[in-house]
Amino acid sequence: MVKVGTFEETARHAEVILSATSGAAALEPLTLAGALNLRGKILVDISNPLDFSKGMPPTLTVCNTDSLGEQIQRAFPEAKVVKTLNTMNAFMMVNPGQLAGGDHTIFVCGNDAGARVAVTGYLKDWFGWKDVIDLGDISASRGMEMILPIWVRLFGLLRTPVFNFKIVR
Amino acid sequence: MVKVGTFEETARHAEVILSATSGAAALEPLTLAGALNLRGKILVDISNPLDFSKGMPPTLTVCNTDSLGEQIQRAFPEAKVVKTLNTMNAFMMVNPGQLAGGDHTIFVCGNDAGARVAVTGYLKDWFGWKDVIDLGDISASRGMEMILPIWVRLFGLLRTPVFNFKIVR
Repeated sequence: MVKVGTFEETARHAEVILSATSGAAALEPLTLAGALNLRGKILVDISNPLDFSKGMPPTLTVCNTDSLGEQIQRAFPEAKVVKTLNTMNAFMMVNPGQLAGGDHTIFVCGNDAGARVAVTGYLKDWFGWKDVIDLGDISASRGMEMILPIWVRLFGLLRTPVFNFKIVR
Repeated sequence: MVKVGTFEETARHAEVILSATSGAAALEPLTLAGALNLRGKILVDISNPLDFSKGMPPTLTVCNTDSLGEQIQRAFPEAKVVKTLNTMNAFMMVNPGQLAGGDHTIFVCGNDAGARVAVTGYLKDWFGWKDVIDLGDISASRGMEMILPIWVRLFGLLRTPVFNFKIVR
């Protein structure tokens, strides 16, 4: 039975935590969830630090020398933060096959190698991702978050969120 | 006959200017070339504002709310700045067919629509690019330059510069 409770109750019983809030606000619900309840667990961060407060296009609240993924890892050092799923639209995240038979790319990064392997497995087994690139430690969040501005620009141009990056190699 | 002279002489006789210097230093040679010699001409900016002064990985000297492409356009308002070719390795720029038969993407942006069309033509006719995405005005330089951090990360991981982004749509 799924019991919907407070952030704290939910996090306490969770095996894997998925942070999918607004990026600018991501730290607050995780703080409410409680650092002890995140301890040792995989914390999947899919959020982007987009700032719409000055209108369109959004800017990033953090970039270049830091990232939201790193901020979350620093705030919860005992969680195994894995950044992924932030480089495409929500409908694409869970159904990559809707576009080009899934022939496009998703990235993962995080400091814990085992957590990266586990999340890569979730992406492949649950959602059907075929091309998962493991970028290594959490500092790769910078690059993963900094491709958002061109994503936003392409979204405006293509007038559909059904597109994605593929790393051709 | 190609005559190699000063920046100023070279720019005076040029029909199209290509700025391919280190990004952090891009404005200086263009200043030496002389604003009058850039006036009304297409100025193709392929540089990236990478800062290696604090070691690896490089950061960007400008990003998020501004870009090198925009800085160059502001410094030379009468030039038709077109940003392109900055999102892949130099060997890939002029020979996209070496990878996946050229089935990957290049971007252009700039304030002058005619200049974007002309540069798109050069990319296709001279270098063999097939998928050229016109992102519109020069502010798209932000997104084009901000994908460099993930490019650098991928370069470290793949251990070859022979890769590129494809926008699957």
